[in-house]
Amino acid sequence: MQVNGKHYRTIWLSANLKQIEIIDQRKIPFAFEVVKINSSNEMATIIKDMYVRGAGLIGVSAGYGMYLAVLESADWSSIVSAAETLKQTRPTAVNLFYAVDLMLDSLKEVDEEDRLQVALETAQKLAEEDADNCRMIGLHGVKVIEELSKKKKGERVNILTHCNAGWLAFVDYGSALSPIYEAHRRGVDIHVYVDETRPRNQGARLTAWELLQQNIPHTVIADNVGGHLMQNGQVDMVIVGADRVAANGDAANKIGTYLKALAAWDNHIPFYVAFPSTTFDTQVKNGVNDIEIEERGSREVSHIEGWLNDEIVEVRLTPEGSNIANYGFDVTPARLISGWITENGIFHKSSDL
Amino acid sequence: MQVNGKHYRTIWLSANLKQIEIIDQRKIPFAFEVVKINSSNEMATIIKDMYVRGAGLIGVSAGYGMYLAVLESADWSSIVSAAETLKQTRPTAVNLFYAVDLMLDSLKEVDEEDRLQVALETAQKLAEEDADNCRMIGLHGVKVIEELSKKKKGERVNILTHCNAGWLAFVDYGSALSPIYEAHRRGVDIHVYVDETRPRNQGARLTAWELLQQNIPHTVIADNVGGHLMQNGQVDMVIVGADRVAANGDAANKIGTYLKALAAWDNHIPFYVAFPSTTFDTQVKNGVNDIEIEERGSREVSHIEGWLNDEIVEVRLTPEGSNIANYGFDVTPARLISGWITENGIFHKSSDL
Repeated sequence: MQVNGKHYRTIWLSANLKQIEIIDQRKIPFAFEVVKINSSNEMATIIKDMYVRGAGLIGVSAGYGMYLAVLESADWSSIVSAAETLKQTRPTAVNLFYAVDLMLDSLKEVDEEDRLQVALETAQKLAEEDADNCRMIGLHGVKVIEELSKKKKGERVNILTHCNAGWLAFVDYGSALSPIYEAHRRGVDIHVYVDETRPRNQGARLTAWELLQQNIPHTVIADNVGGHLMQNGQVDMVIVGADRVAANGDAANKIGTYLKALAAWDNHIPFYVAFPSTTFDTQVKNGVNDIEIEERGSREVSHIEGWLNDEIVEVRLTPEGSNIANYGFDVTPARLISGWITENGIFHKSSDL
Repeated sequence: MQVNGKHYRTIWLSANLKQIEIIDQRKIPFAFEVVKINSSNEMATIIKDMYVRGAGLIGVSAGYGMYLAVLESADWSSIVSAAETLKQTRPTAVNLFYAVDLMLDSLKEVDEEDRLQVALETAQKLAEEDADNCRMIGLHGVKVIEELSKKKKGERVNILTHCNAGWLAFVDYGSALSPIYEAHRRGVDIHVYVDETRPRNQGARLTAWELLQQNIPHTVIADNVGGHLMQNGQVDMVIVGADRVAANGDAANKIGTYLKALAAWDNHIPFYVAFPSTTFDTQVKNGVNDIEIEERGSREVSHIEGWLNDEIVEVRLTPEGSNIANYGFDVTPARLISGWITENGIFHKSSDL
């Protein structure tokens, strides 16, 4: 996607083939900085400290981390040790384990002298697949937006999204934002309401920045606002990403998604979830009952990061002594979801088919 | 209510009868400072700059502002001019106009030499009525909490609230928090989930501070969290205040209230609105259709205030160039409300009677 008019992915191999480059997402939208990573240990730090984040990108970063490990030593025991280090960075990121295990599997049966080539090819393939799946999500999802545009006779289509499911969370295009980018490319008149998405403000920081860079009209709102907008006909469609989708269609996504799904339901507004099909976890039969929700540190709620005098600072928001709870995700029941958009197409409830 | 173990109201007459004292709410929870106000012009600034806020407190402050005006001059034209200045401070605060007009009416027919005494009595009466109405809201509302406690066999009752409808918004006790304070006084085991309430964070700043001062167990959460908690049986009841209640029971309250009402409805959790009966606006037949929602400045969303190195600072949250929308309130349809608590008792929908 575009950054200051230049094309970028979120992660790429240096021209010298010895380094991986990434965008330091901790500084967006206040600064745009590219960081070069020289070793698998450095990559582990980069993932752990959230220079990179988002399901897709974490997986691909770990894949490239394994490539850097093989660059350092093609010895099997070093490779396994690098894999262990990478897996410990974000214990709840399913894509991380998937990517590292795929790299291990592809390297295990290969002679030491061939490992570097295999590691490079496998890591690149992970990245390409991620980008390609997101591109396909866009091509399928755009049909929903085009149809709304047609219904409105070309009048502006207003889309609400929560958190960041854009290209910054993947290698390129994104999941929930991919259909939006595709619609914009096709000249559909669209406008996006961006939930700021407390506590980490991925909407206000990342999604707003992404849309600004692609010149897509958008408006940042507090998480409290979406219901009011939907009640007053200011939203035509909601589209969000997903962190895990159960066999029954229940979708775990950033905390607060469920509230927007309720408002969409109450106001007869279509609510779509977009994700690569690897996000389906068919082991989980019932999402609402069975998906365990990560509790995160209290500091994300008691404090917030912002920009002051050209520096990122963290300020306190709550009184010392008040207890804090910080749930990372919630689960939206399938009954509130209009359609599930993956690289394979759009799935509707059978009653809609 | 208690502050550092000492009893306070939000506003009171100095012992010398020449000044009004208030708590500077802009600094809570980071600092507790009492400010003395010497003139009606100073009071206008205090209201305009939001040292004091909340429907009830704004009205009472304006009443005392009129008393200060009479202290300065009992001349009718000065009184009218002070009234004009006070009315211009917060153009959407209904209580402000009510209080100033009541003061004018009570002073109009009175001889100049008696005006000071009448102004004092009328302003004091406004304050006492506000406190008394809130106390009665507590005495009625506590029954709902006691019943839940009985149903749970004395197990802790979890109550979720949004924004600040506590004593800081009135003279004493509060509206939504008054039943909570009364339950605590009676020894009912309660715990309060406090929505931080972006963009102005009245929950994280004011409600959390109030509850901390009264030693009531509470947990601050991002506005996104309530749906998840309700879905998982962690909330027994929701209680919020109201800024305006229409003839059909629809309730305008801080933006985001409607989303919590939807979640309560979806999970069969009682949702109560508490307010002094002056908040009823029977001129408005249908709240959702007819209550106009105030749009506020973008800076409340693009920036946030916090505490850094013992100072209150404002930091930027959104990229420059992103558009912002900031709606102050939303309207919760009566169909989602279980009961309306006022100083006159609890009103239920006729189908519940």
